[in-house]
Amino acid sequence: MEALVLEKQHELTIRDFPVVEPLGAHDVRLALRTVGVCGSDVHYYENGRIGQFVVREPMILGHEASGVITEIGVEVQHLKVGDRVCMEPGIPDPNSKATQLGLYNLDPAVRFWATPPVHGVLRPSVVHPAAFTFKLPDNISYAEGAMVEPLAVGMHAANKAQIKPGDLAVVIGAGPIGILNALAALAGGCSQVVIADLQQPKLDLAASLGPIVPVNVAKENYVDVVMGMTDGWGVDIVFEASGNERAAAGVFDALAPAGRVVFVGIPGQPIAYDVSAGQVKEARVEHVFRYAHVYPRALALMGSGKLDVKPLITDTFGFADSIKAFDYALHMPPTSVKVQITVAND
Amino acid sequence: MEALVLEKQHELTIRDFPVVEPLGAHDVRLALRTVGVCGSDVHYYENGRIGQFVVREPMILGHEASGVITEIGVEVQHLKVGDRVCMEPGIPDPNSKATQLGLYNLDPAVRFWATPPVHGVLRPSVVHPAAFTFKLPDNISYAEGAMVEPLAVGMHAANKAQIKPGDLAVVIGAGPIGILNALAALAGGCSQVVIADLQQPKLDLAASLGPIVPVNVAKENYVDVVMGMTDGWGVDIVFEASGNERAAAGVFDALAPAGRVVFVGIPGQPIAYDVSAGQVKEARVEHVFRYAHVYPRALALMGSGKLDVKPLITDTFGFADSIKAFDYALHMPPTSVKVQITVAND
Amino acid sequence: MEALVLEKQHELTIRDFPVVEPLGAHDVRLALRTVGVCGSDVHYYENGRIGQFVVREPMILGHEASGVITEIGVEVQHLKVGDRVCMEPGIPDPNSKATQLGLYNLDPAVRFWATPPVHGVLRPSVVHPAAFTFKLPDNISYAEGAMVEPLAVGMHAANKAQIKPGDLAVVIGAGPIGILNALAALAGGCSQVVIADLQQPKLDLAASLGPIVPVNVAKENYVDVVMGMTDGWGVDIVFEASGNERAAAGVFDALAPAGRVVFVGIPGQPIAYDVSAGQVKEARVEHVFRYAHVYPRALALMGSGKLDVKPLITDTFGFADSIKAFDYALHMPPTSVKVQITVAND
Amino acid sequence: MEALVLEKQHELTIRDFPVVEPLGAHDVRLALRTVGVCGSDVHYYENGRIGQFVVREPMILGHEASGVITEIGVEVQHLKVGDRVCMEPGIPDPNSKATQLGLYNLDPAVRFWATPPVHGVLRPSVVHPAAFTFKLPDNISYAEGAMVEPLAVGMHAANKAQIKPGDLAVVIGAGPIGILNALAALAGGCSQVVIADLQQPKLDLAASLGPIVPVNVAKENYVDVVMGMTDGWGVDIVFEASGNERAAAGVFDALAPAGRVVFVGIPGQPIAYDVSAGQVKEARVEHVFRYAHVYPRALALMGSGKLDVKPLITDTFGFADSIKAFDYALHMPPTSVKVQITVAND
Repeated sequence: MEALVLEKQHELTIRDFPVVEPLGAHDVRLALRTVGVCGSDVHYYENGRIGQFVVREPMILGHEASGVITEIGVEVQHLKVGDRVCMEPGIPDPNSKATQLGLYNLDPAVRFWATPPVHGVLRPSVVHPAAFTFKLPDNISYAEGAMVEPLAVGMHAANKAQIKPGDLAVVIGAGPIGILNALAALAGGCSQVVIADLQQPKLDLAASLGPIVPVNVAKENYVDVVMGMTDGWGVDIVFEASGNERAAAGVFDALAPAGRVVFVGIPGQPIAYDVSAGQVKEARVEHVFRYAHVYPRALALMGSGKLDVKPLITDTFGFADSIKAFDYALHMPPTSVKVQITVAND
Repeated sequence: MEALVLEKQHELTIRDFPVVEPLGAHDVRLALRTVGVCGSDVHYYENGRIGQFVVREPMILGHEASGVITEIGVEVQHLKVGDRVCMEPGIPDPNSKATQLGLYNLDPAVRFWATPPVHGVLRPSVVHPAAFTFKLPDNISYAEGAMVEPLAVGMHAANKAQIKPGDLAVVIGAGPIGILNALAALAGGCSQVVIADLQQPKLDLAASLGPIVPVNVAKENYVDVVMGMTDGWGVDIVFEASGNERAAAGVFDALAPAGRVVFVGIPGQPIAYDVSAGQVKEARVEHVFRYAHVYPRALALMGSGKLDVKPLITDTFGFADSIKAFDYALHMPPTSVKVQITVAND
Repeated sequence: MEALVLEKQHELTIRDFPVVEPLGAHDVRLALRTVGVCGSDVHYYENGRIGQFVVREPMILGHEASGVITEIGVEVQHLKVGDRVCMEPGIPDPNSKATQLGLYNLDPAVRFWATPPVHGVLRPSVVHPAAFTFKLPDNISYAEGAMVEPLAVGMHAANKAQIKPGDLAVVIGAGPIGILNALAALAGGCSQVVIADLQQPKLDLAASLGPIVPVNVAKENYVDVVMGMTDGWGVDIVFEASGNERAAAGVFDALAPAGRVVFVGIPGQPIAYDVSAGQVKEARVEHVFRYAHVYPRALALMGSGKLDVKPLITDTFGFADSIKAFDYALHMPPTSVKVQITVAND
Repeated sequence: MEALVLEKQHELTIRDFPVVEPLGAHDVRLALRTVGVCGSDVHYYENGRIGQFVVREPMILGHEASGVITEIGVEVQHLKVGDRVCMEPGIPDPNSKATQLGLYNLDPAVRFWATPPVHGVLRPSVVHPAAFTFKLPDNISYAEGAMVEPLAVGMHAANKAQIKPGDLAVVIGAGPIGILNALAALAGGCSQVVIADLQQPKLDLAASLGPIVPVNVAKENYVDVVMGMTDGWGVDIVFEASGNERAAAGVFDALAPAGRVVFVGIPGQPIAYDVSAGQVKEARVEHVFRYAHVYPRALALMGSGKLDVKPLITDTFGFADSIKAFDYALHMPPTSVKVQITVAND
């Protein structure tokens, strides 16, 4: 099958790449439709590795995906051929302790698409467990379906934040994850979100999507903005979605007493963490790792119209232009948020 | 001062009624602007009592109120003269155990407006604790401000339901509280709400306000609708807002495993409660009593545009027509939801 | 293999009963050691059915079991031959939605030992999933190991109650489950438990096991006792473990504001449930169905000495006397709590 | 009145020190009985300050106190003259937002005994709000009553940890707070606690108090011990009670997936915090500041015999020897845990 293959660092090819995948009783076979380009895909292209995960053999890229079911395993009941779907890219060991506790994302044995040595899905078809395959609402396109994966990160963060109706939140970082996090927080019960970043075009886009207050941290301090909005009390929730060590060190600054912090971004180094600043506010700090159990929730919010990801899909390429798409993503203008590749049309 | 006085059962007058209220250090004095007519006000008018609360002396009615501050106590800091505000009508004993635990609504010593022997606020002015007086956002009118009280009931229910982003909910009952509960549930994170009632005009109104699926239970069973929408899994949350004994007895029917039930309506009699039906789903059942700590949350959602109560204000009367307003509320057409009285204009 | 077979209602035999059980990759094969007699076993013997579960074919009884591992599947890692273990008797479908959410006890497809048509374990050996097989601490005997199943019900109830350190609880009912619930509540953080029943010997036994206050409801009202102990505030938690409809109808009577109720017992009929009584206290009501994820917790508390079930094992029979054991259990004196059958010794 | 006065850094005197305290309607007047010496008292003696709190005027020391009521305010109902009591040393502003939310310990306006410029209670009598004064169970001595204050820190930490029955915990640090934290965790539902420290006598004492596993970190790594005990899974809860920056940086090392961390100790500097280590386990991190609402819980556990603080009271001095007590506390041998001063006997 014709696939986008990362041969090694810096070298992408589109070529026939055989993948033999038997269909298990609880699996489905899919024809891919849309695959988004994630920062991690681009990172493997540019660096050949992410931390301990090193590309040693040619690997198909892509893990933000939607498609249509072409075949179902004998035990599959809730899906059928022709269903339009999106997929969770991580497959845990069903017998692990973490999985049995409902914490499947924390299973160290998870096999995750486009994470060496597991292939991704920039290819015509793939076999996937039915349990991690989710039907798209009729009013949701394949392109939107392929946005569920990055949205799921924001949804999981919103879920962990235990939002109470009407909470005020800050999102630090207005990259794709930060903006999706802001949308998830709003759809999930926040009254308003303050979003902080350095890139004005990203902030402008975010501000156009709902009650989102943009703060360009090159010009003003978001903590001052928050304190002005709240009579000095602070916000209920801080989502750290920048991964920036300095920003992450300040998560308590804008927080209200008994507020919650969610670490979404992944700083490359340990941060300078002020325990006593967290103590005087009795902050609760949550850490998220990918997501679990949130795809149906994301799809429900998208299907009901409460959460619209379309404005974030700024650039679309055909499959034949996949390498061009990656090169574009490598040097993306600040007005771009999400690059997608249309693998096939219906 | 000129007030709307319930002299006794069936007898309302508008007359001068002296109320002497000294201004404490932590109090504010308000000029009333809008006061909504609540079912309980009408019930006192019609029956002269609600349960153990009996109207034995002439009593001013009204507790859903907004106004403007005309004087502040010496210790008041977060409010000033001229602030447009709405007020929580229940004043707890600050020294009670419940209040200290943050459960002020459960303090048996609460003094609640228009609950004998405490006067309501269909009158020119009132003194109130600053701590229970909340500034209106600039884009929120006095009429909307007077809706915060009934909305607070729905907000508190939504809060207790511990909504997770994307939850699906049922609201049983499409009276004012049921519809406000549905709006609070949506603003608070639900993806969609199924609302069940017998009155088609109320259902039509509800359906126009967001992703709300109306079910006329005279024609179809909401449980069937829910099970069809969820592949037989059920909804995450059931809000019982009808107070009807039979409806309340069925709260587990549409519920998903590990779902939550919130009893908002108050059945007049014990209901036939099927413990084992709750057990096979391990339902969590919450009971709400008025509200606590939710006014700022309601105002935040209204101010940011996520929750709009204006369509529910169907009928407005001037203060001189207060008695007419009550007689209208007594025999309200099904197209009416909320009757308000404009006590004064700015 | 020689098994205790319920041939039909009223007829038990000990006879050779072939059960062919292949060993799956994730299974273990066990030699049974001790099996407790549960009320449900006795109920099948006496009535031939429990609700919709009817004994239509001869069925082996027994589901409270411990044993020793004699063979392990090729994928089993955390257990080995010779391990002394106890087992969860319910085996869910690993692919069900409930199981994936971590709610395996709510999976309608659960196969539960000694629930028609699934055989129990009053027999020499059985094959069981390793994931539902738990190693006994060295200081825990097989007899204690067979108590983990009924204890798990109380542990699950204690878990659902979200006990805060120092909470005061009431347990209604001093049968085996009620007493085990009281022990689990104490080990799980309660400072003291008030236990209410009619049988004085059960109350005397309970009172000897820790800070448990016995109340014989034939002589005094437990609500009065509670209110006297708490200056009229009430208890933090009420565990309803009697299954009695009248007792269950009164669960709010002794409860404190913001208290929690757990329905453990299963009333045969709907109860008269006073919603408004729950509302004035904003009670949270939890319903439990068997248990999930608590075996390791029960074993940890038993192993560390914080929870001792030995005093509850009042009667022990050899396997040859199994029928005698059931006839004894059918007409058990009030001084007896738990009857066990020693299937084999090491 | 004769008081122990910190005149300035390094200078303690016992002298007559007039304190005029009117009795408010909701206050009680107490005769002090026992006052414990806290590390903070000693710190003021040695350094004349703690952070921003500087001793500028002579100040009476002591805040871990018990006593007997000698007079009650006109509105006090739940206490009477002659009641044996202990007291919370922090008095919040009843009108603050934090207090109204039930978060009184987070009110920045809290007035805390023996924190400049507020006097402590090493003196014959004091006036205190009845709401922060708690009756001792009959079987609890004044000496034990004066232990409730440091125990409350551990109780609050145990409360925040949301212990599930049978959880396994680590406590880092075996000072008075660490040991009390371990006792609170056990009484609050943990099956076992691993405690890590460098001082062998403290570890030996801790190990004698219940199912507490001592680990001398000079000799072995507590993470190895934990992983050996849990098949590599880790503990449910880590309480950081050392305040040591390096220890605090390692809070995720021994933690299980979905585990909780509670920061009890207060590191003097920001710590090197590995966000990604918290993320792969989706750790929840709680920060505690003093305590709130836990005195009644601590007393309930002590009164029922589930928690015994007596072994920690290692050294007792008469009031006349107060200065000697402080000099002893300044150079305390590792076998000592808590120094108390008997202000008066009954």
